[in-house]
Amino acid sequence: MRRLSALALLLALPILRAEDGMWTFDNLPLKQLKEKYAFEPGKDWIDHVRLSTLTLGGCTGSFVSADGLVLTNHHCTRGSLQRLSTKDRDLVKDGFVAATRDQEIKLPGLTYRTLMAMENVTERVAKAVKPGLGEKAAAAARAKELDAIKAELEKASGLTYDVVNLYQGGETWMYGFKTFKDIRLVAAPEIAVAAFGGDYDNFTYPRHDLDFSMVRVYENGKPYHPAHHLTWSTEGLKMGDLTFVVGHPGRTSRLQTFAQMKYDRDFGIPAYLRNADRTRAILEEYGKRDAEHARQVQTLILGVNNGSKANEGSLAGLKDAEAMKRIEDAEKALKAAVAKDPKLTASTGKSWARIEQATQLQKGLLKEARSVGSARSTTLGQALALVRLAEQQELPVEKRLTEYRSEGGLKVLKTRLSGPAMGMMGQGANPELETLLFTRGLEDAARELGPQHPFVVAILGGKKPADVAKAAVEGTKLNDPAVRKALIEGGKKAVTESGDPMIVLARKLEPILLGLRKKQDDVRAILEEHGARIAKARFAVYGKALPPDATGTLRITYGAVATYPANGTLQQPFTTWAGLYDRHFGWGGNEAKDYTDWRLPQRWLDRMGKLDLRTPLNFSHAVDTTGGNSGSPVVNRKGELVGLLFDGNIEGNAGRYYYDEKVNRSVSVDARAILEALVKIYDAPHLAAELTGK
Amino acid sequence: MRRLSALALLLALPILRAEDGMWTFDNLPLKQLKEKYAFEPGKDWIDHVRLSTLTLGGCTGSFVSADGLVLTNHHCTRGSLQRLSTKDRDLVKDGFVAATRDQEIKLPGLTYRTLMAMENVTERVAKAVKPGLGEKAAAAARAKELDAIKAELEKASGLTYDVVNLYQGGETWMYGFKTFKDIRLVAAPEIAVAAFGGDYDNFTYPRHDLDFSMVRVYENGKPYHPAHHLTWSTEGLKMGDLTFVVGHPGRTSRLQTFAQMKYDRDFGIPAYLRNADRTRAILEEYGKRDAEHARQVQTLILGVNNGSKANEGSLAGLKDAEAMKRIEDAEKALKAAVAKDPKLTASTGKSWARIEQATQLQKGLLKEARSVGSARSTTLGQALALVRLAEQQELPVEKRLTEYRSEGGLKVLKTRLSGPAMGMMGQGANPELETLLFTRGLEDAARELGPQHPFVVAILGGKKPADVAKAAVEGTKLNDPAVRKALIEGGKKAVTESGDPMIVLARKLEPILLGLRKKQDDVRAILEEHGARIAKARFAVYGKALPPDATGTLRITYGAVATYPANGTLQQPFTTWAGLYDRHFGWGGNEAKDYTDWRLPQRWLDRMGKLDLRTPLNFSHAVDTTGGNSGSPVVNRKGELVGLLFDGNIEGNAGRYYYDEKVNRSVSVDARAILEALVKIYDAPHLAAELTGK
Repeated sequence: MRRLSALALLLALPILRAEDGMWTFDNLPLKQLKEKYAFEPGKDWIDHVRLSTLTLGGCTGSFVSADGLVLTNHHCTRGSLQRLSTKDRDLVKDGFVAATRDQEIKLPGLTYRTLMAMENVTERVAKAVKPGLGEKAAAAARAKELDAIKAELEKASGLTYDVVNLYQGGETWMYGFKTFKDIRLVAAPEIAVAAFGGDYDNFTYPRHDLDFSMVRVYENGKPYHPAHHLTWSTEGLKMGDLTFVVGHPGRTSRLQTFAQMKYDRDFGIPAYLRNADRTRAILEEYGKRDAEHARQVQTLILGVNNGSKANEGSLAGLKDAEAMKRIEDAEKALKAAVAKDPKLTASTGKSWARIEQATQLQKGLLKEARSVGSARSTTLGQALALVRLAEQQELPVEKRLTEYRSEGGLKVLKTRLSGPAMGMMGQGANPELETLLFTRGLEDAARELGPQHPFVVAILGGKKPADVAKAAVEGTKLNDPAVRKALIEGGKKAVTESGDPMIVLARKLEPILLGLRKKQDDVRAILEEHGARIAKARFAVYGKALPPDATGTLRITYGAVATYPANGTLQQPFTTWAGLYDRHFGWGGNEAKDYTDWRLPQRWLDRMGKLDLRTPLNFSHAVDTTGGNSGSPVVNRKGELVGLLFDGNIEGNAGRYYYDEKVNRSVSVDARAILEALVKIYDAPHLAAELTGK
Repeated sequence: MRRLSALALLLALPILRAEDGMWTFDNLPLKQLKEKYAFEPGKDWIDHVRLSTLTLGGCTGSFVSADGLVLTNHHCTRGSLQRLSTKDRDLVKDGFVAATRDQEIKLPGLTYRTLMAMENVTERVAKAVKPGLGEKAAAAARAKELDAIKAELEKASGLTYDVVNLYQGGETWMYGFKTFKDIRLVAAPEIAVAAFGGDYDNFTYPRHDLDFSMVRVYENGKPYHPAHHLTWSTEGLKMGDLTFVVGHPGRTSRLQTFAQMKYDRDFGIPAYLRNADRTRAILEEYGKRDAEHARQVQTLILGVNNGSKANEGSLAGLKDAEAMKRIEDAEKALKAAVAKDPKLTASTGKSWARIEQATQLQKGLLKEARSVGSARSTTLGQALALVRLAEQQELPVEKRLTEYRSEGGLKVLKTRLSGPAMGMMGQGANPELETLLFTRGLEDAARELGPQHPFVVAILGGKKPADVAKAAVEGTKLNDPAVRKALIEGGKKAVTESGDPMIVLARKLEPILLGLRKKQDDVRAILEEHGARIAKARFAVYGKALPPDATGTLRITYGAVATYPANGTLQQPFTTWAGLYDRHFGWGGNEAKDYTDWRLPQRWLDRMGKLDLRTPLNFSHAVDTTGGNSGSPVVNRKGELVGLLFDGNIEGNAGRYYYDEKVNRSVSVDARAILEALVKIYDAPHLAAELTGK
């Protein structure tokens, strides 16, 4: 591929920084590492940290013992802890430590995977597309070749392969995974310590959270013995030390155009925040009914707040005039490079303008996009998915919506739709909460869209929101996975004949939703087509000097333990147990009224004198991470475990759009704190011994 | 005086808030205190806290024992500690505790005063001005009456009386003081603990500073026994508790017009900050010469940084669009009230526009105002003052600059000019530092004004800045107070005949400086005249419902111990010893490289185990204070000492222009920390016993 000269490249890379980047394992920035840190990891080092890492689906974990012990965040297993808790045994509040392996508790429904193999299939797929083929035929040829490669690889290895597109199509890979399904809880601290400071301190450094949990991977009923696991460091970190984070950053939007960032800043994120405010208000309304209700929504509210704070940080980043100037300049530089190349000009010259037009269309659809849907009902969401599945399967493949076209895609959809837990809120099984959310969702839609909007007319049918919600939630049987399975298997006939009130509603709504979806697809098609053209141009100009946007696949990033300026001072690189107690007592201890997020479990007060108060608890480091990196191992030059990533600072939320090494910091639990807590607070020297191999 | 109706008053007071206000002792907001806190202080309570408080000149202190022990901040006595320190005995670095009264060290040059009596003389002065007198004659009559009142009061009481103008002339008072000159050092911690976190943590909460010192007032060679002193509280504070701060807030500019605030925002403060940056750079250049040089400028740099951070906070406040809107609205409300009253319209209707014009003139003079002067030389500053004094005294009174008109004013000037320590920098006695500052000051003036500017031509006389500075500093004798005294007594003849190189320079410069001063006086006259008209209109509309701007006179303010939102979370109301150690160890302890502001003296590490780590160290409270409040006692409802004010948060620096109770917080040392440190760290139970009366 044609590349610019080195000088032109340098001039055209105004936003590229040393620490910037979530790098793929085939393309580590070895030159930068050597030049800046005099560090040259060999193939063994790279393979070792990769093979010790697991994807937990939305989180990351790592093997930390030869007997399959996995370290991740408390907030990565919190959903499981919540589901296994009852009024009498509250694993979230009281924590848990298995004194023996017999006591380890099975966590149902989890799938952990390790990335065992990576194959670059870009050229093979390209070759499969014969010259002169039309667009559709080319796509079909590509898909066929990918299916063939997948089958070959899986047969040869016994692994499960995923197609991975990088650089928005610039490269195509096959990633092969080993899968684990038998996951058991070994240890988790009390939520008061794991999420000390609650929503207030979330994303705020200095931080004092023991946000870890430990599970064990079993295979065939016995602890799994991984070929690779991370050794627990005995040295410990200090300011300036180089760290690496291995994990699965979920999504960044750094390669969006400037117009898209402005859309997010002025419309997209503000709309998200308004919606989150409303969700929180409804959950709080529910929580006020009594203590048990409050307990039920506690983690849901934390989740909503978490999303809001992250988006507020992103929004602040987009409002930073200096950063936006840098982004605009980078775009101008790429545009200039494109303008100098007739071929790139032909393919991409108008792409920025087309995307800007598409954001105008997006803006016009925003209100409907927010209000036309499941009206906050998880069960209605399921019903809508079942109806759509039935409708789409009746259509010829080329007329279907994208996600209904491949057999693989359909299988994933069906599996998800027939599973036990559904929806972000998981409230399907809680009719009282479901009814409240649905009622408020209907009221909001009616207010936002007006009483004459077809969606409002169809869903309310002239009745009151509360009555519609109550009747549907009381009458539905969709919470039973067997009922959903029967509807999936019964196809369009079963769905059409169903008298389930949620399905009845969904049948009425589907044409309206489909109409909106098609308008959105038109916009998305423009954004994707021209986004891909720009991405290809970028790849043509810069190659792999810029890492690809995060896509939830395995990445490695690096940087030093570092302070940063905030709040008028410099933030300390480490916090300690002393800081945990300072913030606890500073709020008035467990007697504090009004503000209770800094309370501590009694044993933490009883055993304060046993702890070495100087022990580092959390640290801040200049590594480029984002959501999905939660639970990532932090390793040192030796590839040893020194920390457990669990958070970023507020400034780091701008990382969705750009990495700012001056202030963007990730926040990790120091490995020394985990070990000390296991021994001195949780009476679990056996786990400490397993971790340290002593 | 004519007042608006209660409703109109309410509508017209958009910026008045409950906690807003530095109230004079004759006008405590008793109604608000009763309504909000159910607290009704009696005359005894009010007199007791007033008579226990001292003004130290720029700081505040309070009597805390029957034997004349005074509590104030470390940074209020730091200048004295620095002056008494030598290479062998570093009172700043090592701290000091007198084991017996014999060991107490006299601090020369200090004057402490207590406000013993307050007389409202507004009406008496008004009566002295007979109807029909011209402006000049009226002013003379007022001055004569004030002199007469002062003489009467002083004769009757033995106190020293000051004229105090409040509400920009709305009220005139006589404040009577008892004066103390024999002040001896009793205790001061190490600066590492008193100013823990150095410049970085200054103005940043959470804070961990033991910023106290103790001195004893002597009279006739014996400890003074004050009629009132504050009792040390045995209860301690908690979140939400009501606190009072008694002290001498120096200056606020809240009653400026909106145009003046915009001038400060866009020109005044930015110019200040540029100048401070330059001063700091020169001091750092000096400090790099070696460790002893660094020691010499350490406190000077802290002072410069302190000023910069405060101004940056003020500037951020002026950039807060919401607050500026509130201020603009308040101005509009007052303008509307003025417009409804023909008499006020006649006097004040055009005043806002006149002030806005004056700020344009100010802008035009800014460059000269910054560069035409003493060129950073303390000694040249003295020489200029001596020359001007001699010139002005030759003129008839009405042609003199304001400060040379009254006999009292002249006396103050002469006393200051013949004292031992001169200038903010106190560097007159350090020829090496003086030479560097002067050289750089001359270079800056030449660069800023250009080589042809009369000031540059006159001061350089074609020579190089370094040569001019070296010759003048080496040749001058003005560091000798006796030389200055002789020049003052010798009048114009002595000054004209003096061959002292600084005086020679000053004679050449005086006409240029005087020309600039006259232009500035013209602007100031407009600002003062129309500022006073607006103030009178405000007093006519609102009366004493709004407290007067701070003027360095004694005030009381109140508010609760409170959290506030910052950095994405809520700030803890208290910090503890645990927090001090957290920040120390979090930075790597005493082994930390690069960042050394969080080091601790060895005895603080050796004795960590002796301290109760839960003890509150600092706290944040919603009281309205500003510079000059440093060292103010914090008292509870019983009038007992619970804390020692030493700082505000960054957000509080906007308090120069407006008080924002959401985020403006003062920061105080908790009285419990002082007591515990005296006993457990400093082995001074005798002082603890004196404070607690045990």
